[in-house]
Amino acid sequence: MTKNDFSFDLLAKDGSARAGLFHTPHGDIPTPIFAPVGTQATVKSLTQQHLKELDAKLILANTYHLYLRPGDDLIAELGGLHDFMSWDGPILTDSGGFQVFSLSDMREVDEDGVTFKSHVDGSMHRFTPERSIEIQENLGADIIMAFDECAEPYDHNYIEQAMHRTHHWAERCMQAQTRQDQALFGIVQGGVFPDLREISAAHIASLDFPGNAIGGLSVGETKEEMHAMLEIVNDILPEDKPRYLMGVGTPQDLVQCIQRGVDMFDCVLPTRLARHNAAMTDNGRMNMMNAQYAKDERPISDTCTCYTCQNYSRAYIRHLIQSREMLSGTLLSIHNIHTLLNLVRNIREAIIHGQFDQFAQNYLSNLDL
Amino acid sequence: MTKNDFSFDLLAKDGSARAGLFHTPHGDIPTPIFAPVGTQATVKSLTQQHLKELDAKLILANTYHLYLRPGDDLIAELGGLHDFMSWDGPILTDSGGFQVFSLSDMREVDEDGVTFKSHVDGSMHRFTPERSIEIQENLGADIIMAFDECAEPYDHNYIEQAMHRTHHWAERCMQAQTRQDQALFGIVQGGVFPDLREISAAHIASLDFPGNAIGGLSVGETKEEMHAMLEIVNDILPEDKPRYLMGVGTPQDLVQCIQRGVDMFDCVLPTRLARHNAAMTDNGRMNMMNAQYAKDERPISDTCTCYTCQNYSRAYIRHLIQSREMLSGTLLSIHNIHTLLNLVRNIREAIIHGQFDQFAQNYLSNLDL
Repeated sequence: MTKNDFSFDLLAKDGSARAGLFHTPHGDIPTPIFAPVGTQATVKSLTQQHLKELDAKLILANTYHLYLRPGDDLIAELGGLHDFMSWDGPILTDSGGFQVFSLSDMREVDEDGVTFKSHVDGSMHRFTPERSIEIQENLGADIIMAFDECAEPYDHNYIEQAMHRTHHWAERCMQAQTRQDQALFGIVQGGVFPDLREISAAHIASLDFPGNAIGGLSVGETKEEMHAMLEIVNDILPEDKPRYLMGVGTPQDLVQCIQRGVDMFDCVLPTRLARHNAAMTDNGRMNMMNAQYAKDERPISDTCTCYTCQNYSRAYIRHLIQSREMLSGTLLSIHNIHTLLNLVRNIREAIIHGQFDQFAQNYLSNLDL
Repeated sequence: MTKNDFSFDLLAKDGSARAGLFHTPHGDIPTPIFAPVGTQATVKSLTQQHLKELDAKLILANTYHLYLRPGDDLIAELGGLHDFMSWDGPILTDSGGFQVFSLSDMREVDEDGVTFKSHVDGSMHRFTPERSIEIQENLGADIIMAFDECAEPYDHNYIEQAMHRTHHWAERCMQAQTRQDQALFGIVQGGVFPDLREISAAHIASLDFPGNAIGGLSVGETKEEMHAMLEIVNDILPEDKPRYLMGVGTPQDLVQCIQRGVDMFDCVLPTRLARHNAAMTDNGRMNMMNAQYAKDERPISDTCTCYTCQNYSRAYIRHLIQSREMLSGTLLSIHNIHTLLNLVRNIREAIIHGQFDQFAQNYLSNLDL
């Protein structure tokens, strides 16, 4: 296994939208792709059999959470994340950076790393680029991330400092990497500032990672700002490497960001909405608690081919929610993840057939936002 | 469909233990059988696919709960319980009697029926034998139960009155039944008193139901008392009808009650223990929270063939519990139900091969109670 085994075949382009195939030691990932999130080494409420049947091609796990509990050393001892969570397909871990900045009560950044307090038990910890890579090597995912600082998007001065730190850390992560069977992605930062995004994209591109991520978006800025930054960054990032937009998104986001050259996504949205009784469909969201579904024999979506829609009615799902039965979370998670995976599959087909713009226009006009 | 379609083939006897086949409109039930409980039309945390893969041959749903929420009329409108919960195998509903007596804050019994307060919203309701049958006909299970009074087991005078009421109610249930595609079972009562159990078994047997249930046990009496009552009752109940011991039990109970001529069981134990982090095995229970499992790569049971044991380690299940992840309840429910279903399958084989006593002796001696 060498870094060259993580090759990316760009199969088709339609405008800026791309269809490709990213090779990893645990299987090929067709792009565009959406990765369901298994924060604590479990995509909430689903067995790995459910994920196989959903044909999930990539799942994400969070370094910050697994480092704190059960510990990356324990997972390494048990054979790594694939064995631990019984998932033999591709896995991606983030660097822990985003969670340190968003979940920890207290964190202090210096040029060398970040000291932070655990949200689990209040104990103190320190992440550096080297430590993040060590932890991610213990976890053993196929795709790992450089340690970055995700700062508030509107403070130009601070964002500039954080961006330079992120660039230095990216180089340290490259140096620290010892395993050849993991693809390390660099992360572009720069907030909502075109000048900084240009500098960051050019710097990260120059480091020649096997893939590049775009961080610091979908953190409070407007959609227009996000789209503008994507256009700037994706004009600079190399064509022959996959581009991963972290923590996004909604069906609308997937369409609009693929339209701007993004290949990979992850988001907790489908499972989080499921736990809040919401179904995602190609026509928008449905609140399954709604009394109008009490006697509704139809599936969530008439055209959906997921296990939930093939077997259960809106009335039954509403009854489960009313009765506070766990199964509602499982059934809605299956449906919501299917909706996003099916969307990226359809988009990929449209790109390959040169019909993406038409697909996007139809899809977005049917979406009741 | 006539009542004769619910025939029971007694295939083998070994001592008092019996192996049989009970025919129902939604499939044959091999006996002895254990029925997982789906109180609110869902076996907690499991999809129907899980239940199919577990090869569950019969599941139970609770009339009291479904009458209150979502309502038996709504379920009837949606095609009955099989369609509603997407389960095409045999279903059994209880009469609602037991829950009225155990769950309702306030209930008043008279000769005609019971008035009670809903545990959901405090509203007042009334069940009579006729109403219980009407509700169970709306639900549409394959096996339904006569409405009975399950009284405290130690008050001879009161138990005697309640037993006579139960006998009258059993006759009224028979009269009230209009559907021919449901097997109505009578219920033997009589507390811990041999004289009353004899009277009750003889009376219920004389009514010639397609199957007979034994109620009022496992409600606080000792195991010795329960076993003594089973021996008395099963000496009187007809050989050519299945015998159903309601609300039991543990692996030990299954072995010891099959030994005394019982054919059918149901209990919430496997799913309830799962939600309390306990695994049931042929060697006793394991508390999966226990620190000793933190790095344990083995499955819950080395010899178990369930989905959970084929795919996940003790360490992973403990991690899910520690992280309060829902998947632990699903994985432990799969394992626990498998343990009981596998036990009754093994017992059935042993009975057919005339080796039940040896099986029972081995099994009970390996069980660390």
